[in-house]
Amino acid sequence: MSPKSQFLSEILEQPTALRRLLAEGREPTAAAAAKIKQFAPEWALIAARGSSDNAARYAQYLLGAHNGLGVGLAVPSLISLYGAAPRMGRAAVIGISQSGQSPDIVGVVATAAKQGAVTVAVTNDPSSPLSRASSATLPLFAGEEKAVAATKTYTTELFALAMLSAELEGDAERKAVLEKVPGYVEQVIASVEGRVAQAAQGFANAGKLVVLGRGFNYSTAFEVALKIKETSYIVAEPYSVADLLHGPVAMIDEQFPVIVVAPSGAPQVDVPKLFDLLEKRGARVLAISDRADVLARAQFGLPLPADVPEWVSPIVAIVAGQLFAHALCVATGADPDKPRGLSKVTLTH
Amino acid sequence: MSPKSQFLSEILEQPTALRRLLAEGREPTAAAAAKIKQFAPEWALIAARGSSDNAARYAQYLLGAHNGLGVGLAVPSLISLYGAAPRMGRAAVIGISQSGQSPDIVGVVATAAKQGAVTVAVTNDPSSPLSRASSATLPLFAGEEKAVAATKTYTTELFALAMLSAELEGDAERKAVLEKVPGYVEQVIASVEGRVAQAAQGFANAGKLVVLGRGFNYSTAFEVALKIKETSYIVAEPYSVADLLHGPVAMIDEQFPVIVVAPSGAPQVDVPKLFDLLEKRGARVLAISDRADVLARAQFGLPLPADVPEWVSPIVAIVAGQLFAHALCVATGADPDKPRGLSKVTLTH
Repeated sequence: MSPKSQFLSEILEQPTALRRLLAEGREPTAAAAAKIKQFAPEWALIAARGSSDNAARYAQYLLGAHNGLGVGLAVPSLISLYGAAPRMGRAAVIGISQSGQSPDIVGVVATAAKQGAVTVAVTNDPSSPLSRASSATLPLFAGEEKAVAATKTYTTELFALAMLSAELEGDAERKAVLEKVPGYVEQVIASVEGRVAQAAQGFANAGKLVVLGRGFNYSTAFEVALKIKETSYIVAEPYSVADLLHGPVAMIDEQFPVIVVAPSGAPQVDVPKLFDLLEKRGARVLAISDRADVLARAQFGLPLPADVPEWVSPIVAIVAGQLFAHALCVATGADPDKPRGLSKVTLTH
Repeated sequence: MSPKSQFLSEILEQPTALRRLLAEGREPTAAAAAKIKQFAPEWALIAARGSSDNAARYAQYLLGAHNGLGVGLAVPSLISLYGAAPRMGRAAVIGISQSGQSPDIVGVVATAAKQGAVTVAVTNDPSSPLSRASSATLPLFAGEEKAVAATKTYTTELFALAMLSAELEGDAERKAVLEKVPGYVEQVIASVEGRVAQAAQGFANAGKLVVLGRGFNYSTAFEVALKIKETSYIVAEPYSVADLLHGPVAMIDEQFPVIVVAPSGAPQVDVPKLFDLLEKRGARVLAISDRADVLARAQFGLPLPADVPEWVSPIVAIVAGQLFAHALCVATGADPDKPRGLSKVTLTH
């Protein structure tokens, strides 16, 4: 057996990291929520790139469905390239960056703060420029992330946002759900770890694939695709089921590899129709789901724990995707810890 | 010579369609702008899918850089799947849909209208449900679009938004630029039409490719990729240059096909660095640009007219991309008018 890669070690570290955040994050979460409530924003704007941008996609559903907030994803280059500063004075502006270093993300938050917005940094480095530019910080407490592909900082970003949403709503039932999340992640590791190698063999010669998700797990589809692109050099494109039907479905043909992320929840109405379509076109399908009927219709299945409330399911489902991406990387002969052309901190201006 | 496809006919019809919109659209544009100014929105939210979602991406830069508006892209399924209605009462909410039929887009606008938002429909059918749900309509005056892949409704959507932005700003110089747009589109057709067949031969065996753009032309990268996916069944993934460097650059290797959309403007600072990287990795590059230095570094070049102001350049650059997508479709032996699995109106719930 070869020694464990950093990438895999950090995937397996996630239950511990999430437990630490649950404990250490209570106070900063309460402080940030109090500032936001006092400000009573008209809307929210999130600035992020890469994996953190997928955390922002999750926040669109989370803060929209549970906190009544319309959430836009910022266009950082409006400020960094065009020197334009759109009005953000009545918004809650959240910057998400594991390193807290990205100058364009810091730029959005600093500009918003000048305009009087309430600003929150979600970062693994509470002494970073992003944190210093913000009126409140949610530290991730994830410990140093050594692998180039983000894993534990992604799930802790999601979890920090979930904690903030529950605190803003002040809902005891949702807070109780948060306590169970580290255990769900342990469960998914246990149920998936032994299955990913076979599934990866079935996809290793792919070259290209699509990842489908919807609703809360639209974010998961993006993040699974990103992990695969970063580590296996396969062109992996994320889609919402709705957008796929608006055109790109044309490219799916015989043996085309498709990953369907479909935990139980509101979007499950689409799933049988989707499988009819994929079967008709002869696609090769990997399903990530807790539903027996979904797993039964796919060539490969990665089972998720049952009864995970949908709003925290992206924190659980992505771990199956991370383990699959790692296995795919190994199956294609690439080095999980040395993705070509990538460095840990990207200073985009 | 085989008869012209609908797809190609409608691409070539665009100068006429844009001229018609310039004339007929004056009054509705003034009426919509007056309503928005009176309302003085805190932010803007755009609901759209497919090609219209790429028009929304353009509007993020347009309304952000020229009208000081923070623009979010709506998550229609928040309402349609989760029954959630985020606060939109202080927003300008714009629904974009050529048919005006998409129930989830109509749902966002109708919900916003109930909350007191100012609402605008951008649609080719001013008697559509989207138009009826909105307080103002910008009709596209594009005539019936018969091809399944949207072309003239896309450029008229962009143009309607550009006219609205100039009217909101009340800037005479920008209004004078609008008058020149149909002519720019004529120029790009003349300079590109004879070159696309050779470029398409160079990309026909690709299977997958990426399309890069930034700033105002981030939207163009998405729309070029969508046209290719819809009609040539090639996996074409759009990226901003910044996001590519945040990870997915790893997948670019020897002969990997890349389309670079790079009209003159603020993001051109990135371009030489980008080409260094693409050359180092041995990528096969098609450039869409007015810049001689950019065209010189690419294996294939589609020249754009010179001196097009950046804020209208997406209306011009996409036409080169449409002509290339058509040529690629012909080169791969597909039927441009019968994309498999696509219908003109997708009723996404």
